[in-house]
Amino acid sequence: MVVGVIGTGLIGGSIAIDLKKNGFADKILGVEQNPLNAQVAKDLGIVDQVATLDECISESDIIIVAIPVSGAVKLIPQILDRVTEKQIVTDVCSTKGMIASVVKYHPNRKQFVLGHPMSGTEYSGPRAAMSGLFDGRAGIICDAEESDMRALATIQKMYDALNMRLIHLSSAQHDVHTAYVSHVSHVISYALALTVLEREKNDRHIFDLAAGGFASTARLAKSSPEMWVPIFMQNRDNVLAVMDTYIDKIQAFRRAIDEMDEAAITELIQGANRIKRIIR
Amino acid sequence: MVVGVIGTGLIGGSIAIDLKKNGFADKILGVEQNPLNAQVAKDLGIVDQVATLDECISESDIIIVAIPVSGAVKLIPQILDRVTEKQIVTDVCSTKGMIASVVKYHPNRKQFVLGHPMSGTEYSGPRAAMSGLFDGRAGIICDAEESDMRALATIQKMYDALNMRLIHLSSAQHDVHTAYVSHVSHVISYALALTVLEREKNDRHIFDLAAGGFASTARLAKSSPEMWVPIFMQNRDNVLAVMDTYIDKIQAFRRAIDEMDEAAITELIQGANRIKRIIR
Repeated sequence: MVVGVIGTGLIGGSIAIDLKKNGFADKILGVEQNPLNAQVAKDLGIVDQVATLDECISESDIIIVAIPVSGAVKLIPQILDRVTEKQIVTDVCSTKGMIASVVKYHPNRKQFVLGHPMSGTEYSGPRAAMSGLFDGRAGIICDAEESDMRALATIQKMYDALNMRLIHLSSAQHDVHTAYVSHVSHVISYALALTVLEREKNDRHIFDLAAGGFASTARLAKSSPEMWVPIFMQNRDNVLAVMDTYIDKIQAFRRAIDEMDEAAITELIQGANRIKRIIR
Repeated sequence: MVVGVIGTGLIGGSIAIDLKKNGFADKILGVEQNPLNAQVAKDLGIVDQVATLDECISESDIIIVAIPVSGAVKLIPQILDRVTEKQIVTDVCSTKGMIASVVKYHPNRKQFVLGHPMSGTEYSGPRAAMSGLFDGRAGIICDAEESDMRALATIQKMYDALNMRLIHLSSAQHDVHTAYVSHVSHVISYALALTVLEREKNDRHIFDLAAGGFASTARLAKSSPEMWVPIFMQNRDNVLAVMDTYIDKIQAFRRAIDEMDEAAITELIQGANRIKRIIR
């Protein structure tokens, strides 16, 4: 099987590495807009061959679109315009609603599978790609009923090859869920980083004390604008709704601390402690 | 040297383990209000002997107060009332201003060292104690000029034995710094956990997707109210001030996303990305 990966960064690169390693792919073609990244992907053995978009579309059995979602919404319909009926196209983007809507009436919609292999790190680019990134993580397929059986079975097999837990959601459900468990976490982390960096202007030693707790909460603030601005744009309504709930919670804490209401703070913390059930 | 540890939880217990292991302490006496925890601390070998407060005060060369800061502000003056001139007392609390003020005019103030070995995990109690918890972390000593040379040298040697990076701050500076790099991180994490848990009431599957990013940002939400309510009380003014800056940043993000102002979101994220200099 020839797998074409468009975008050989953290996600595309990590998929390429493991699909080749476990034998799912016989050959990986990599398409990269950035020539430096293309060279790195080739040098690191992430892809077998750097290809143009045309070569990738004409030679691949599966085409994986792994670029920021702002580019993906434009590129996916163009690829679907040109594939033969044997080819399968999928994507890996973190928001699904807008992609779902731009392909909805495409005559080759059934050859496309809306996917989101849900993993990542705060780093980007081919140097950040690594084996095992998806191991045990959620592999989400959205609106499965819009894809034909063969396309669906192939992408499910691909997720199996990455050892992902397969989850089916509608694209609308997906975008609500990810606003809660991923997108707003990023906003929070960015805002914390900005808060402390602003203080640093007057207080150069503030980071001498930045230990594990801060590093954990601010880790996501290293994530790139190239990936995240389009996500916030495309999932705007869900992100704003979750942010409003979050701001209410922050204000409840602020009020309780301001009023030195120990019972109220205790109750808020005990409520939050229930997260122990969920994260280890 | 006999070291008395009052409170054999995560912090006190971890100090006890390493001071014994590296030979700084010949004997560890542990004082525990909770009899179950006392038994665990003894069974796990964290302390050599469970002692009453009286025994601890009469037999220890160094007394380390490692209980929540609400208890510490009451207990430390009582201990200082009763020590002989050879004994040294220190604490490990996360807020320093209030403790500094209650001991300010105590006749034995010079035998006391305001300390904050800055490490921890989201767990608590003697079972959470571990060797190496303080390795390479910041060991903060506040208002050093208020302690006599012998007390200071002894506690510095103790921090050396734990392999901490020694940092000197005033108690006021300390409380501003920790509000930024620790206390508000906890509020943020609690509020995120509450936000997602509230959604879970109507949507049982939301946590199927909770991957690394969420776990990292919400990790601190497991921290106990016993430790954190007193910290928020005692560092109220600093915490509120930092929260106000933080809320401004969150609102700036909210506005930029609401207005779909890509340039503004990009600028906010690029600003936050500067945190790469600080945390690895």
